[in-house]
Amino acid sequence: MATETMTWHGSASNGLLRMIDQTQLPGQLVEIECRDVHSLWDAIKRLQVRGAPAIGISAAYGVVLATGTITRDRGTATLDDVLQACDYLATSRPTAVNLFWALDRMRARATELWSAPRAMSAEQKLEGLLQEAKAIHDEDRQMCRAIGRHGVTLLDGVESVLTHCNAGGLATAEYGTALSVFFTAQDLGRQLHVFVDETRPLLQGARLTAWELQQRGIRATLICDSMAAQVMREGRVQAVITGADRIAANGDSANKIGTYGLAVLANAHNIPFYIAAPSSTFDLSIESGDEIPIEQRGEAEITEAFGKRTAPLGIAVYNPAFDVTPADLIRGIITERGVIQPVTRANVVAHIGQ
Amino acid sequence: MATETMTWHGSASNGLLRMIDQTQLPGQLVEIECRDVHSLWDAIKRLQVRGAPAIGISAAYGVVLATGTITRDRGTATLDDVLQACDYLATSRPTAVNLFWALDRMRARATELWSAPRAMSAEQKLEGLLQEAKAIHDEDRQMCRAIGRHGVTLLDGVESVLTHCNAGGLATAEYGTALSVFFTAQDLGRQLHVFVDETRPLLQGARLTAWELQQRGIRATLICDSMAAQVMREGRVQAVITGADRIAANGDSANKIGTYGLAVLANAHNIPFYIAAPSSTFDLSIESGDEIPIEQRGEAEITEAFGKRTAPLGIAVYNPAFDVTPADLIRGIITERGVIQPVTRANVVAHIGQ
Repeated sequence: MATETMTWHGSASNGLLRMIDQTQLPGQLVEIECRDVHSLWDAIKRLQVRGAPAIGISAAYGVVLATGTITRDRGTATLDDVLQACDYLATSRPTAVNLFWALDRMRARATELWSAPRAMSAEQKLEGLLQEAKAIHDEDRQMCRAIGRHGVTLLDGVESVLTHCNAGGLATAEYGTALSVFFTAQDLGRQLHVFVDETRPLLQGARLTAWELQQRGIRATLICDSMAAQVMREGRVQAVITGADRIAANGDSANKIGTYGLAVLANAHNIPFYIAAPSSTFDLSIESGDEIPIEQRGEAEITEAFGKRTAPLGIAVYNPAFDVTPADLIRGIITERGVIQPVTRANVVAHIGQ
Repeated sequence: MATETMTWHGSASNGLLRMIDQTQLPGQLVEIECRDVHSLWDAIKRLQVRGAPAIGISAAYGVVLATGTITRDRGTATLDDVLQACDYLATSRPTAVNLFWALDRMRARATELWSAPRAMSAEQKLEGLLQEAKAIHDEDRQMCRAIGRHGVTLLDGVESVLTHCNAGGLATAEYGTALSVFFTAQDLGRQLHVFVDETRPLLQGARLTAWELQQRGIRATLICDSMAAQVMREGRVQAVITGADRIAANGDSANKIGTYGLAVLANAHNIPFYIAAPSSTFDLSIESGDEIPIEQRGEAEITEAFGKRTAPLGIAVYNPAFDVTPADLIRGIITERGVIQPVTRANVVAHIGQ
């Protein structure tokens, strides 16, 4: 991608995180600059940065921003300050486990830094946090590439693929998860045709995935979510690949609302349905999808998402942001380590480790 | 309904058809007046009037408008003039069979009037055409009521229902088809809870069905199309009822895009899926849904339907306006004559007649 999803600029104590404002795409390519943890929290909440891995990376930088502010104000920050910043950032979105995973890494690193046998300066500790955030960022880049390499092995004989929402570069550090499979295929000289669900209510497919595919010259066709069944029935796609926001120990996968329906439809049409997600998306502390909390979002996303009221005033709305696809509808889960197939509890645990 | 979907005003030779402009709902309740056949053709094409039965009724009045213009211009209209007007009106939308059915009735009536043994005046013939259009209009009103009475017998123990698109009063002369079942239940003192698919790309569910239910005080909850699977999985609905635009001899039913996917999902969740449509929706000249032409509509409906571009310029779009639900996914078809159940070729032919 010409423009990176997010980049850190400046020092640990006086830096900023620059991010593409994803709410402005595809109309405008605008970047926002977060110089404190509150503006970053807002950016996550308002979906200016979205996609489970990207949220996690940005939150890691958010810990640096919070600690930097306190260090500047008071000369030093306590471990408690850092842990409180992590707790605060964890409240920005409830479903994406990568957020909690990234914050856990920052907590662990902070605990190490603040309890180092040889006392470190406030600057050194802050620099240590920044290095950890950058490591999370860079590892994500590598993970995406690896997911692409593993995923492409599943597409023998596949010419067209359907995807939902945005599991692309914008959702991650670089290549994305589901889209990494298509980008990798292109790197290998294969041209896939990608059908893109527009993904109501917030149209991440139309706005972001269509844009990313177009930027890279990959053939893409946009459809409404309600057209996926017809596209499958007409034999226009031979596989479905989406990302995930949290995966339970048994393989049940939470992802953008509409994913579960797609999986049911794919199975009814004998089309393999795959999830592509880094290992950080797994949450082995929960046994099944029943335990995954589903974020409910506001009604305006449905009744007036495009700046124009398209439903009568006062109408009731149900707006779950995610759904859970049960493992038995998932043909395989592609991670940076390989492919979990079939998706069983034993295979998940063996793949991810205890 | 306080305001009728369409009403004829004035005489046969100098009248007009007043219709609710359904593209302006729910923001504004605007009526348009069609004084000639071209403005009516445009109103159908631009979906200002939509819904298979309503299109048929309006087209019948359109024959009167066309013949009235010619009569005023030349003093008299030939049978050929009337038949040509019918051919012209048939080009406005390709899928809704009620359009062709209504025009066939007008052709038959015109043939009778123009070959009457005792010569009729131009005025008398025109009046005869208007009476036929009004008969089609009134019969539709009665049909809707009968569909409601038959449909409600299927809802024992049902508290919540899901519907798609608008098969309501706006789509017909008055009570609608699918919505007639809910209106009739209300008349009988039952309060159903109706989940309404917003129905992308043109949001007939959000704009029209939600509005109609709200106008009548029926509890309604709006969802995005992609949420239907989750609503089913959570046990929030116990039946799905939609309208249809054309039904083949074997029971395969064409309806708004998204209906087929809903039917697959309903079956996967053991939720009965019903179609409600007048007998004029059946086209026994076609054996199966494979023969039903599917209207493809423009890309702007998907890329900039809300007056704001929501997809990158130049992106390819696939926009089928309808899909076909195979008979084996349909638990029953509710017509003004009763319920076809199970949906087999033999039962359809026996119900509709040869």
